[in-house]
Amino acid sequence: MKIESVDLFYLRMPEVLDIGDGSQDSLLCRVSAGGYVGWGEAVCSPLVGLSAWITPLSHSGCHPVIDSVLGAPLNDPSDIAKVYQSVRKNSFYGLLQSDLLISGIEIAMWDCLGRAKSEPIWRLLGYQKSYPKLPYASVLFGDTAQETKQKALAMKQAGFKAVKFGWGPFGTTTVKADAEHIFAARDGIGDDGYLMIDAGTVFKEDVEAAAARLPALHEANVYWYEEPFDGYAQLSARTPKVALAGGEGAHNAYQGKQLIDDGKVGFIQIDAGYVGGISNAYQIAQYANKKGVKYVNHTFTSQSALSSSLQSFAGLAESDISEYPMEPKLLCQELTTNRIELDKNGMISAPDKPGTGMDINLDAVKKYLVQTQIQVGGKTLYTTPSV
Amino acid sequence: MKIESVDLFYLRMPEVLDIGDGSQDSLLCRVSAGGYVGWGEAVCSPLVGLSAWITPLSHSGCHPVIDSVLGAPLNDPSDIAKVYQSVRKNSFYGLLQSDLLISGIEIAMWDCLGRAKSEPIWRLLGYQKSYPKLPYASVLFGDTAQETKQKALAMKQAGFKAVKFGWGPFGTTTVKADAEHIFAARDGIGDDGYLMIDAGTVFKEDVEAAAARLPALHEANVYWYEEPFDGYAQLSARTPKVALAGGEGAHNAYQGKQLIDDGKVGFIQIDAGYVGGISNAYQIAQYANKKGVKYVNHTFTSQSALSSSLQSFAGLAESDISEYPMEPKLLCQELTTNRIELDKNGMISAPDKPGTGMDINLDAVKKYLVQTQIQVGGKTLYTTPSV
Repeated sequence: MKIESVDLFYLRMPEVLDIGDGSQDSLLCRVSAGGYVGWGEAVCSPLVGLSAWITPLSHSGCHPVIDSVLGAPLNDPSDIAKVYQSVRKNSFYGLLQSDLLISGIEIAMWDCLGRAKSEPIWRLLGYQKSYPKLPYASVLFGDTAQETKQKALAMKQAGFKAVKFGWGPFGTTTVKADAEHIFAARDGIGDDGYLMIDAGTVFKEDVEAAAARLPALHEANVYWYEEPFDGYAQLSARTPKVALAGGEGAHNAYQGKQLIDDGKVGFIQIDAGYVGGISNAYQIAQYANKKGVKYVNHTFTSQSALSSSLQSFAGLAESDISEYPMEPKLLCQELTTNRIELDKNGMISAPDKPGTGMDINLDAVKKYLVQTQIQVGGKTLYTTPSV
Repeated sequence: MKIESVDLFYLRMPEVLDIGDGSQDSLLCRVSAGGYVGWGEAVCSPLVGLSAWITPLSHSGCHPVIDSVLGAPLNDPSDIAKVYQSVRKNSFYGLLQSDLLISGIEIAMWDCLGRAKSEPIWRLLGYQKSYPKLPYASVLFGDTAQETKQKALAMKQAGFKAVKFGWGPFGTTTVKADAEHIFAARDGIGDDGYLMIDAGTVFKEDVEAAAARLPALHEANVYWYEEPFDGYAQLSARTPKVALAGGEGAHNAYQGKQLIDDGKVGFIQIDAGYVGGISNAYQIAQYANKKGVKYVNHTFTSQSALSSSLQSFAGLAESDISEYPMEPKLLCQELTTNRIELDKNGMISAPDKPGTGMDINLDAVKKYLVQTQIQVGGKTLYTTPSV
């Protein structure tokens, strides 16, 4: 079969706030081939992703992404790799945004192929078995330590054995205030729970400020310390007791591998919707496994994005933990008609269903759709397609 | 003074061909502050750059670039650095294209500031003197070895002592055919001329194929071998006699420094319109100088882009060679009313005039302007401004 059509949808909440919450909009991609339909989401400024799809040719190294995708064969996984390589070859100069856009399209291609072959993506990747993962509830710090504790308690009551707190006030005031949040979180989930802290690159290039939080992180038995900044190796050398985590900014396979080798992270966190798609995520997962580094998905949006991100490491028993988005905006909550629920042991698994196994809710797509039109030189290059 | 307005213009040739020629379109940026006007060009798919300027907010890490630029103070070079840092902080996730767009805007800010202070940019950067550079004519290989020789002869007759041939058929057929082109080029410019070869990453990850060209490159006394692929260090180890060159794909200062340290290039080639602007180019130039690596501009488009790229290393006597675009399309030829000409010794210099010292030809801007409109959710976010 061949890729007959690709539709891109810009979805967003009625109001988008200037807060650290990436679930307020989405660039949803639909791929159709041979009567089958697949869906994927790119973690990407939606309008800029749309533009990369249909932007006019600039030169042989700067083609619109559509040129490498539409009409391409889609019969087995190697065809997906060929499309990705084609984008890299045809859109490598002057079109950085193509790395993000192709992530969503690549996932949709996998989903479509999986449905055509009646196989989950992880089996098409070569895994025999999908191992359950311990999901960690991924939430923002409260505004006060007390609020952070309440959130931790609520997550524990919802059945989570692991919680990650991130962003919010962390790193913006004093070492003492941060320590209070950390201990409040530990109080809330209890001594047995896994606790992770995500600094959201708040310390920029200030290794000292990032390091000043280490004693409290160690005392509260924090499982990992995520994205204090970009200079991982420097801090890694100072923190044998608290492993570093990072990687959500990787937008190709090379960058993920480099964070493992040069950044010395203990946990590599990859978003399939950002890194170029499921194949790149899979490559990094295999590499991490070989190097003794735990692979973890990065997912802060929908259940569909969660399933896409689980595929690449479903079959790796060693990488046994998974980010679980707990507070996404309604758009992301309503985007699928089914969910990946916690099992009786509090674990989650990649669905054993064709493709991602997630069903897109077309009513939600219609509800959050933003009508968009791009005209260049008198021609309409993009207009929102019908759902 | 403050940045009162920024206008972005999409310019292109009436026909854009699927060839390796980046001078067929341009994203031209105009910055106005305190009654002064500056211009810069981003090396960037123009529509996607425009979109990054006005794309709606996605979250606190994904602001449109306009949010970090409009209304910002512009009184001295530190203000330009602040705007750049602000873009990195506000648009770091989901908006990769912002690295390219800000390159053009940053150059326009420097140009505007230079005109306001009646100083060339290189003097604002701290250089006391602008050293002449040996310009190399940058051209594409001919379709045949004979045509390549004719081109080399023509460049010699135009007063050039250095010529770089790139792209075209190189690397696409046989080692023998490539050798014929190399020797034809050497024949044409004579034994004294500098000859450089640009493989345009044609070998992708094939180190053997790239290495198979080394004997001819060495025999023809080629000054550098540019961008055979991305695995520089591997090839560097095998080619002590032919230095490697690369860097035009660097879109931030870190990447340029990394190519020097890890890629072991002998020449680092930076495009101010791609790397984030003149300040990043300057940082890399200083770093290269300290490490004994020659800094070279990458410029394949207009005379305005050439001046922008010369500023960052104008004051470095050791970095004494400069790319000179010889075959740009009419759009780039007509974009300025003045040019950087070869002096009686066949050398060029960064102009000793305010800003870039180049005057934009508004008639050419009108002639090549592409009317563009972007509408999202019923609002017009971008429409081509008046010239």
